[in-house]
Amino acid sequence: MNTTIKAYGAKDSKADLKPLDIERRACGDDDVKIDITYCGVCHSDIHTVRNDWKNSRYPVVPGHEIIGRVIETGKNVTKFKEGDLVGVGCMVDSCQECSACKEDLEQFCEEGMVGTYNGKDKHLGGHTFGGYSTSVVVNKEFVLNIPENIDEKGAAPLLCAGITTWSPLCKWNVKEGDKVGVIGLGGLGHMGVKFANALGAHVVMITTSPDKAKDAKALGAHEVLISKNEDDMKKHSNSFDFILNTIPVGHEMDPYIGLLKRDATMVLVGAVEPLKPFHGGGLILGRKRIAGSLIGGIKETQEMLDFCGEHNIVSDIEVIDMKDINNAYERIIDSDVKYRFVIDMASLKN
Amino acid sequence: MNTTIKAYGAKDSKADLKPLDIERRACGDDDVKIDITYCGVCHSDIHTVRNDWKNSRYPVVPGHEIIGRVIETGKNVTKFKEGDLVGVGCMVDSCQECSACKEDLEQFCEEGMVGTYNGKDKHLGGHTFGGYSTSVVVNKEFVLNIPENIDEKGAAPLLCAGITTWSPLCKWNVKEGDKVGVIGLGGLGHMGVKFANALGAHVVMITTSPDKAKDAKALGAHEVLISKNEDDMKKHSNSFDFILNTIPVGHEMDPYIGLLKRDATMVLVGAVEPLKPFHGGGLILGRKRIAGSLIGGIKETQEMLDFCGEHNIVSDIEVIDMKDINNAYERIIDSDVKYRFVIDMASLKN
Repeated sequence: MNTTIKAYGAKDSKADLKPLDIERRACGDDDVKIDITYCGVCHSDIHTVRNDWKNSRYPVVPGHEIIGRVIETGKNVTKFKEGDLVGVGCMVDSCQECSACKEDLEQFCEEGMVGTYNGKDKHLGGHTFGGYSTSVVVNKEFVLNIPENIDEKGAAPLLCAGITTWSPLCKWNVKEGDKVGVIGLGGLGHMGVKFANALGAHVVMITTSPDKAKDAKALGAHEVLISKNEDDMKKHSNSFDFILNTIPVGHEMDPYIGLLKRDATMVLVGAVEPLKPFHGGGLILGRKRIAGSLIGGIKETQEMLDFCGEHNIVSDIEVIDMKDINNAYERIIDSDVKYRFVIDMASLKN
Repeated sequence: MNTTIKAYGAKDSKADLKPLDIERRACGDDDVKIDITYCGVCHSDIHTVRNDWKNSRYPVVPGHEIIGRVIETGKNVTKFKEGDLVGVGCMVDSCQECSACKEDLEQFCEEGMVGTYNGKDKHLGGHTFGGYSTSVVVNKEFVLNIPENIDEKGAAPLLCAGITTWSPLCKWNVKEGDKVGVIGLGGLGHMGVKFANALGAHVVMITTSPDKAKDAKALGAHEVLISKNEDDMKKHSNSFDFILNTIPVGHEMDPYIGLLKRDATMVLVGAVEPLKPFHGGGLILGRKRIAGSLIGGIKETQEMLDFCGEHNIVSDIEVIDMKDINNAYERIIDSDVKYRFVIDMASLKN
């Protein structure tokens, strides 16, 4: 039987987020029902609430960095039991049968992955509602184990910011001794620095802001390169094995391409907007590469979480109450958060 | 003892090419002296003659698709003997000691490869003179064997247009059954079609010009995709394993990125100019890649030539006399050649 639960969402693109009642499906045979304890706040939440991508369905209930405890499991569920600490990221379903799904790359499902919010709800019809809510019912294949030894609040952003930065580091085989650049110190960038450091790389934070140097080093950067300083950029030219580019808006590419070694790759995880024109010669004269990366598959996400358990890695966060979400959105837009807001869902329940 | 030989070159960026006398060094212990029989005409020749890249040194004697017969060898030369059919491509020297050279990637020599023309001449001082001349003396490590069974005139463009298109197909492991796109049907593109076909790929010529369809199929394309036809572009979206992009000028990238499969790569070999802004999302949503590629190393060039011998592949050419070079340049600029001019060097000797 479906249940009505409390959530927070927006009724249209101009509206602030307010309390809403939404329906959740009953826990099916393959489902896990989760009592949500924390939910991270991702910039994509804001884009969807405000219909920036012109594909929002209202009401929007955002939230795809979900942490909680299992409160019910379907009869086919063996991997989870009541009381387990679990997580849900950006996807709650996929076809499970296409070549992408069979390669554990559900984010590229040929039928389209089902987003945790604003996705097509196969069970109830309509669209999916995210983690700004008290509970959620999710197919067992899209539920992650959260290591009990890490801080559960700080674990929430691992489900999106974490896997988004982890996946390209693994895909492109970043390893001990590599010189790795991370461009941009925000929600994504700060996780990139932590992961690259834990993988044994020599990590260089590349930023326009000299005042971020101290924080970057505290997070694990070995060096800080101020991209506005042409002399310093020149000193580092052709020296990076890998660059993770988290800049969220269109930007010049040539200066960063110049930093790459021969045959090295810069991966874009932030900028979905048009990038500024770049010189083909910059790629040709060193056989360099620009690639994209999109979150990560469920198997890879679990590997990332296990790695976080082993290395005690979580996101640096600021915990807020549900009612403070609209103010938090403004602060995210002003880059005024170190480095991710996480909603304490007890504040919605009480 | 140095010798004075006949050549054709330009005295400044405005001048037509005219007969010139140039000096060649004596054949040293490690050198091979070659009587030039044919020399291909590359668009780079024109860029250098006209100082388009602002680095030309005059007089310019172009030509880096050189075919000829060995007429003398130094005492340390064991791989070549008088009478051998040989070739020289875009490089005549490199440091031979850096990591790039040790990986057989002399084109990326950390001290800079020595171009066959307009490079720094280590032996005579000044700068190097290319193949629009009767003979050349080249270090043995930069001389290639040309299979005797292929047409020697048609082999000339293999030394630049051939290796430029061969190298990325190999580097990115194009194999039987792959769907490979070749964008642009010129000197580079027509070699890309031949090679991809010979490697067993399903080859799609991607062009703006419907009137190139017949020629493309004759060269080995299995399909022709007219890039201006949005419906056809849509039918081919997300379907290519690899795309070789030979467009020589700045151009829109998004339509071509849309053709790539997940995890597939488009390699740029033509456009050194700024490319138009492209959407980061196009790469991110399929983990796609854009890469550059620059000619190829000597070992790889020899492998390409051996492959051409086995598969009887040469370039489609139009043979000209040396005196017709200025007119040929105008025709290249007008894309009025199928697909490469080759100079019959007997016309300079007599």
